[in-house]
Amino acid sequence: MSITLVQTIQEVRANIAAARKRGLTIGLVPTMGALHAGHGALKRRARAETGYVVATIFVNPTQFDRPDDFQKYPRDLDTDVAFCDRLGVDAVFAPDATEMYPGEVLTSVAVSGLCTRLEGEFRPGHFRGVATVVAKLFNIVPADRAYFGEKDAQQLAVIQKMVADLNFPVTIVPVPTVREPDGLAMSSRNQRLTPEQRRAAPVLYQALCEGERLIRSGVRSAAEIKQAAMARMSRNPAFRIQYLEAVDPATFQPVEIVTGDVRIVAAVWMGDVRLIDNVLVAVR
Amino acid sequence: MSITLVQTIQEVRANIAAARKRGLTIGLVPTMGALHAGHGALKRRARAETGYVVATIFVNPTQFDRPDDFQKYPRDLDTDVAFCDRLGVDAVFAPDATEMYPGEVLTSVAVSGLCTRLEGEFRPGHFRGVATVVAKLFNIVPADRAYFGEKDAQQLAVIQKMVADLNFPVTIVPVPTVREPDGLAMSSRNQRLTPEQRRAAPVLYQALCEGERLIRSGVRSAAEIKQAAMARMSRNPAFRIQYLEAVDPATFQPVEIVTGDVRIVAAVWMGDVRLIDNVLVAVR
Repeated sequence: MSITLVQTIQEVRANIAAARKRGLTIGLVPTMGALHAGHGALKRRARAETGYVVATIFVNPTQFDRPDDFQKYPRDLDTDVAFCDRLGVDAVFAPDATEMYPGEVLTSVAVSGLCTRLEGEFRPGHFRGVATVVAKLFNIVPADRAYFGEKDAQQLAVIQKMVADLNFPVTIVPVPTVREPDGLAMSSRNQRLTPEQRRAAPVLYQALCEGERLIRSGVRSAAEIKQAAMARMSRNPAFRIQYLEAVDPATFQPVEIVTGDVRIVAAVWMGDVRLIDNVLVAVR
Repeated sequence: MSITLVQTIQEVRANIAAARKRGLTIGLVPTMGALHAGHGALKRRARAETGYVVATIFVNPTQFDRPDDFQKYPRDLDTDVAFCDRLGVDAVFAPDATEMYPGEVLTSVAVSGLCTRLEGEFRPGHFRGVATVVAKLFNIVPADRAYFGEKDAQQLAVIQKMVADLNFPVTIVPVPTVREPDGLAMSSRNQRLTPEQRRAAPVLYQALCEGERLIRSGVRSAAEIKQAAMARMSRNPAFRIQYLEAVDPATFQPVEIVTGDVRIVAAVWMGDVRLIDNVLVAVR
């Protein structure tokens, strides 16, 4: 393998400094591992746009609201590093928890409003944990461009707002969601679905597409759009819907009447697996 | 004048990049202007230790808990720039409020515990405002070393903890408090004291020194130290004591029995002027 695996902050900083000295731009792809084609798209984009690509693999304990979700989160570093190598990633930064959190961490970064709605409401502390660890990663791996998937659209909005508000000198590049052939958004949590749940799972995306179809057909009432999308899922007993909303793509504030671009976002439970997905609908 | 005055983020970043290209290390001295010999010490230290010194002058609205304190805060950019020039500062970054806060700011940085005790308790939101604007400045002016006065000891502790927790690639350099010949700590708020208050003001430092003297004489009970220091000030009707505590220098948690280094910290009102001061007592 030509890829470099580093586990300390000091070492990854030295690698970045050396790459900068060679005149290379730096691309950062933060992940929690359990890599799939969705992450592949981030890395391919980073590879195409920057000279030195660093993927981080860190299952960040502070962004899990449920300890069991943290415990069950799949981990396989060797497979992940081999995956990164095949995609031409230059370095994987995979610190352990004590490297990232050596003592008591008192500092946190929060994005008010954005951090407490929808995902933030159902996963208390989640986005504070995300914003804080991403701020750390931006300081550890000073990149020119950082790549985040649109699948986690609210996370993307939180990070974009944090970068703007705190003047982080990095360009955030959103990368479209990669889907299975049947439409299910790629997620490391998909592997925890039973075969039966897996067969039903694409209905989540179909419901969002139903909402999109209504908007394209001229419907502007968010309540109507929401109702139609919910109805599409309610017919299937495999789903427990946690939320489904039409929101402003930047602020994630709910929209009542569609007057511009909206994102239709949803979270569902299938058994003990929580899935999220969204579609962005551009409205002229 | 050979000093450069810049008012935009883009321009200061270009200046830093040019200095880096010349192989210079960067020193940052964040201030709110109204510069005095205390700031002078920060700048002299930065000048001695780094190749390109940037002083920032920004009266940050988000760290004032009282609007009248923000309104009354002295501002005189021309005098401040001339002062920086005499001290060999290379560039002054003096943005206006819309440059620093162009839209609604939703992101904040907080250091729990440290942000809400003592100064934080009496000035709600103050340290959140400080931590957030300093995080912004670190991202705008990527410096090797940043200089902060020990006069604002709790602010220094907040920033040191933030830098450690969020991995900002900057070394924080604490600079000892500069005092008037009679012992009063330099502060831009001193100019708002009446002549009578000004004559009484050094008693604040004398009270802290009384606490230090007790520790050096072997006293280890914080209550006793505190009582003696308070007594020193209580004799003078010019003071309303807000707090006086012996605290751990890093965590600002109160100390009951002195077993290691402590900082004796105090805040007082003299009329409508609030003064703070502190002494660090090294204990073997």
